[in-house]
Amino acid sequence: MSWNIRTDLAIENREIYQKAEKVEDEIPGIKTDFENVSEDLKVTKVEIISEEGEKALGKPIGKYYTLEADNMHLGMEEISSQVENKISSILKELLQLSAKDKVLVVGLGNEEVTPDSLGPKVISRINITSHLIKYVPQYINEDTRSVSAIVPGVLGTTGIETSDIIKAVSEKTTPDKIIVIDALAARNIKRIKNTIQISDTGIIPGAGVGNNRQRLNKETIGIPVVAIGVPTVVDSKTIVSDVIEGLIEENKIDDDKKEDYYKYIQKMLPEIENNSIVTPTEIDEVIANISEIIANGINMALN
Amino acid sequence: MSWNIRTDLAIENREIYQKAEKVEDEIPGIKTDFENVSEDLKVTKVEIISEEGEKALGKPIGKYYTLEADNMHLGMEEISSQVENKISSILKELLQLSAKDKVLVVGLGNEEVTPDSLGPKVISRINITSHLIKYVPQYINEDTRSVSAIVPGVLGTTGIETSDIIKAVSEKTTPDKIIVIDALAARNIKRIKNTIQISDTGIIPGAGVGNNRQRLNKETIGIPVVAIGVPTVVDSKTIVSDVIEGLIEENKIDDDKKEDYYKYIQKMLPEIENNSIVTPTEIDEVIANISEIIANGINMALN
Amino acid sequence: MSWNIRTDLAIENREIYQKAEKVEDEIPGIKTDFENVSEDLKVTKVEIISEEGEKALGKPIGKYYTLEADNMHLGMEEISSQVENKISSILKELLQLSAKDKVLVVGLGNEEVTPDSLGPKVISRINITSHLIKYVPQYINEDTRSVSAIVPGVLGTTGIETSDIIKAVSEKTTPDKIIVIDALAARNIKRIKNTIQISDTGIIPGAGVGNNRQRLNKETIGIPVVAIGVPTVVDSKTIVSDVIEGLIEENKIDDDKKEDYYKYIQKMLPEIENNSIVTPTEIDEVIANISEIIANGINMALN
Amino acid sequence: MSWNIRTDLAIENREIYQKAEKVEDEIPGIKTDFENVSEDLKVTKVEIISEEGEKALGKPIGKYYTLEADNMHLGMEEISSQVENKISSILKELLQLSAKDKVLVVGLGNEEVTPDSLGPKVISRINITSHLIKYVPQYINEDTRSVSAIVPGVLGTTGIETSDIIKAVSEKTTPDKIIVIDALAARNIKRIKNTIQISDTGIIPGAGVGNNRQRLNKETIGIPVVAIGVPTVVDSKTIVSDVIEGLIEENKIDDDKKEDYYKYIQKMLPEIENNSIVTPTEIDEVIANISEIIANGINMALN
Repeated sequence: MSWNIRTDLAIENREIYQKAEKVEDEIPGIKTDFENVSEDLKVTKVEIISEEGEKALGKPIGKYYTLEADNMHLGMEEISSQVENKISSILKELLQLSAKDKVLVVGLGNEEVTPDSLGPKVISRINITSHLIKYVPQYINEDTRSVSAIVPGVLGTTGIETSDIIKAVSEKTTPDKIIVIDALAARNIKRIKNTIQISDTGIIPGAGVGNNRQRLNKETIGIPVVAIGVPTVVDSKTIVSDVIEGLIEENKIDDDKKEDYYKYIQKMLPEIENNSIVTPTEIDEVIANISEIIANGINMALN
Repeated sequence: MSWNIRTDLAIENREIYQKAEKVEDEIPGIKTDFENVSEDLKVTKVEIISEEGEKALGKPIGKYYTLEADNMHLGMEEISSQVENKISSILKELLQLSAKDKVLVVGLGNEEVTPDSLGPKVISRINITSHLIKYVPQYINEDTRSVSAIVPGVLGTTGIETSDIIKAVSEKTTPDKIIVIDALAARNIKRIKNTIQISDTGIIPGAGVGNNRQRLNKETIGIPVVAIGVPTVVDSKTIVSDVIEGLIEENKIDDDKKEDYYKYIQKMLPEIENNSIVTPTEIDEVIANISEIIANGINMALN
Repeated sequence: MSWNIRTDLAIENREIYQKAEKVEDEIPGIKTDFENVSEDLKVTKVEIISEEGEKALGKPIGKYYTLEADNMHLGMEEISSQVENKISSILKELLQLSAKDKVLVVGLGNEEVTPDSLGPKVISRINITSHLIKYVPQYINEDTRSVSAIVPGVLGTTGIETSDIIKAVSEKTTPDKIIVIDALAARNIKRIKNTIQISDTGIIPGAGVGNNRQRLNKETIGIPVVAIGVPTVVDSKTIVSDVIEGLIEENKIDDDKKEDYYKYIQKMLPEIENNSIVTPTEIDEVIANISEIIANGINMALN
Repeated sequence: MSWNIRTDLAIENREIYQKAEKVEDEIPGIKTDFENVSEDLKVTKVEIISEEGEKALGKPIGKYYTLEADNMHLGMEEISSQVENKISSILKELLQLSAKDKVLVVGLGNEEVTPDSLGPKVISRINITSHLIKYVPQYINEDTRSVSAIVPGVLGTTGIETSDIIKAVSEKTTPDKIIVIDALAARNIKRIKNTIQISDTGIIPGAGVGNNRQRLNKETIGIPVVAIGVPTVVDSKTIVSDVIEGLIEENKIDDDKKEDYYKYIQKMLPEIENNSIVTPTEIDEVIANISEIIANGINMALN
């Protein structure tokens, strides 16, 4: 029944696969490293290294860093600055920036829906320099990197595929590297206050709210795309499926009955309206503080 | 297991009670009337007339109007104006306004969390007149009613009980009637796009997001309080409990097993983090259009 | 000293020219028509028909409609609906829409600065259909026109020329017609609550706040561009220059002295910081109500 | 003609008086101290010590600190942290906080008008603790100070005198000290990016946008009120008057003529619409960064 469980986090895909397939050692095609940066901050690097790994995790070949820090959403100085430093160093590694590289930062999502507003909120804190280099070079350091940014909006409010807007602007402004920030769906609601994922595999705009569209990555857009994602919602269907899956397991339901239960879920899921999401009531605090952390991390990496 | 099912809608409490108690006729202590205003708009009036009714529905004695119109959230002219007219006429009935009555309109909720931002959004569209009557009476009709408004914020961002702010402002400005607007929790997510409840029983600020605090009504504040509520979320625990309840029923689980299932839910619910909510992804559209409808209805009733 | 007087309104350029050149009849190269639509609404059509007219008014050949209605900013039903109807009919004339024409609506300006937020506010109320035609044609009328929209942001927050973003998106999505909405600068602050200009001559993004950049029109972008502009600010330098100009005139200052006065202004203007603007304190109400009027007018014209 | 020059800054009142009265030494009834905290930050303390000083400066007896730092509005780490520390130490001095003192922080102004949104923006970053002390004391340090906050709105959107809301909430929640944050008017537009004033003389809500209402201070509200103000606008009439005053001085206009000029201004000022304001176009950046600095300074002082 794992088709009802949706997550954008490689680290959760890995857990799901290990549990489903009863794999205790490493999954073939996957390499995983753990780092305890401090008592507060843990970093997991899941690397998908082959097609076999791609199939197992349902995600493309590449590196997926997951930063986990309890209470990251509270914005406390000490934890925040650790996370910012780590974001900066991971970005530097994944982007492989040369001194002259121009960077475009893209903030995906819908500003009007709090859990989807992370991307635009980050953009509002990025140090934009590309117009200064063009119009007032005398006022800035000569080795200032060119940084520009866009907030392309969402399909529902523009009517335009977000990937088309990004591609169009990218073709016109020819950045060397792209950073995309987006809100993600997790499987477990506890992740919403403590997790950031950074990967070098690009992004599928709109995937965060249930639609499935074109991936933006080096292949499709000709430029490396590093994605920073923060889980801010759980899909309602995921929560419901997960609960019943747990019930089946806990109560050792036999296979016949299991089929009935699955049929019931199939019948009932459409009742839970398409695209409904689960989010904590303090999501405003989560977005405010984590967007600031990410913006600081990006600014540190680019300047 | 109905203690896991939370709803702020009297109409849903009634359904839950009828089903649980297998009551097919009217519940003792309750009077219900149905009106099909048009093909689009249906109004149900649930009146709790005795203590018996109070216990059955878990809500105080009084009138609860529920307006239901499919696609109300799309803001189409035709449906909107029907709903606005009906809101206006129900408000007039419940408020029993005399020509000189001063009205205070209160917009509850947190502007920063989309599904909780209904109250503040409505306030931004209310025609405020009390300062005009005081400072520039020459520019307005002499029979203009005095209307003022506040957005008291939420406990998490003020640190102050919302009911204390409302009481304090009410004592200082001495309105004759109060209208309070708030986002509610429904049991069924389908209600989020088509339902408005209006009642003369006051409101418990903060109840919409899982806390339980003091009721504001004629008894506690000395002034009649009419509440306009719109379901914008479903409590996560409600969805999960509801699904398992349905599964038990559908699969005719026997009583022994049922106990195990209930125990499992008890164990698992805390995992679904306190105060997490389910809401549709297009909640911004719901809030934008329904807040406009409610503000128009209020302005119509007061002017 | 008219080089200090800045206005984006053709109707004001005309007045300035007539006064400066002491022209009482029509300016050569210009054709002007007046229409009193009602007691409330006046429409002036200034048509620049030759290069001579271009030079006189400092604006390109084309039609400039100015709608004037006192208290337009108060959003009263009666005036609003007259203005909406007029916007719709002028748009139809200038756009010359065929049934199949796809339209892109562009909202210029900075959402974070109230007097510059008109464009984005209008966009949030436009009926977007292009994604519905693509993904759910079964749910909409088959003759629904394709409408899409973007909010490109401003140079200071994106680092990208706004005209580049519009061109890029336009090339990628190939609309047949473009409507651009922007906040303008007027000469007279009284215009801020009662004026809308609609023209078929395109727009220079960023011009509204003192910068001078590339014009978007049929020549540069290959697609007809109709601009809807609303004066929301007066340039500080304009106010100051205007006042001193008035003082000189009123007090019949002789030519010698005049030169001194001009020198003084030259010295003093830089003190009034670049790009500072004058706006009424109730600019939030102006933006809220006039953006709604414009969006309604556009929706009416396109559907 | 100084009646047309409006400023909320004691430091500017002092300059105006010195110039008008040709006082070179200290003004009687006034004591002034200058401190160069660093190359970046200058602090001036103007103390009004007698009625004579009150009349000279048109402000009540008390201390007025002015912090000046060029480019304060850019939010650069180094300058920001100096200013935050200084705000914190001045607040501690003026508030004379005991360990048990409960503090109410009030954010004046209109969130919907960028230059008037400073107060609400600061509030959104204040660490609120009063509800935590009440409901979850086990999760916080036992010596945590009780901090609560309100955003009372403005007369135009509530219809209620802002001072009435503050008084009402203050009476109900009985804080020991109040901090009020508000946007101010300066005489000189250059101040808008580099100045913060902190005083122990309370505040007149609404004064920042041209109205004149009741002062909130220890006398009227029974609780010490410390005000933090940031100039974000210049009154249009101030700019115009100032320019003509300068012209008169520069050109040594004789007294007869001067009278004519004054008459002209008298006639012309009403044309510049009541309550219109001058503000820089980058006011969004000013508000974003300076509100963060002030919130950090307050949080530091209170925790």
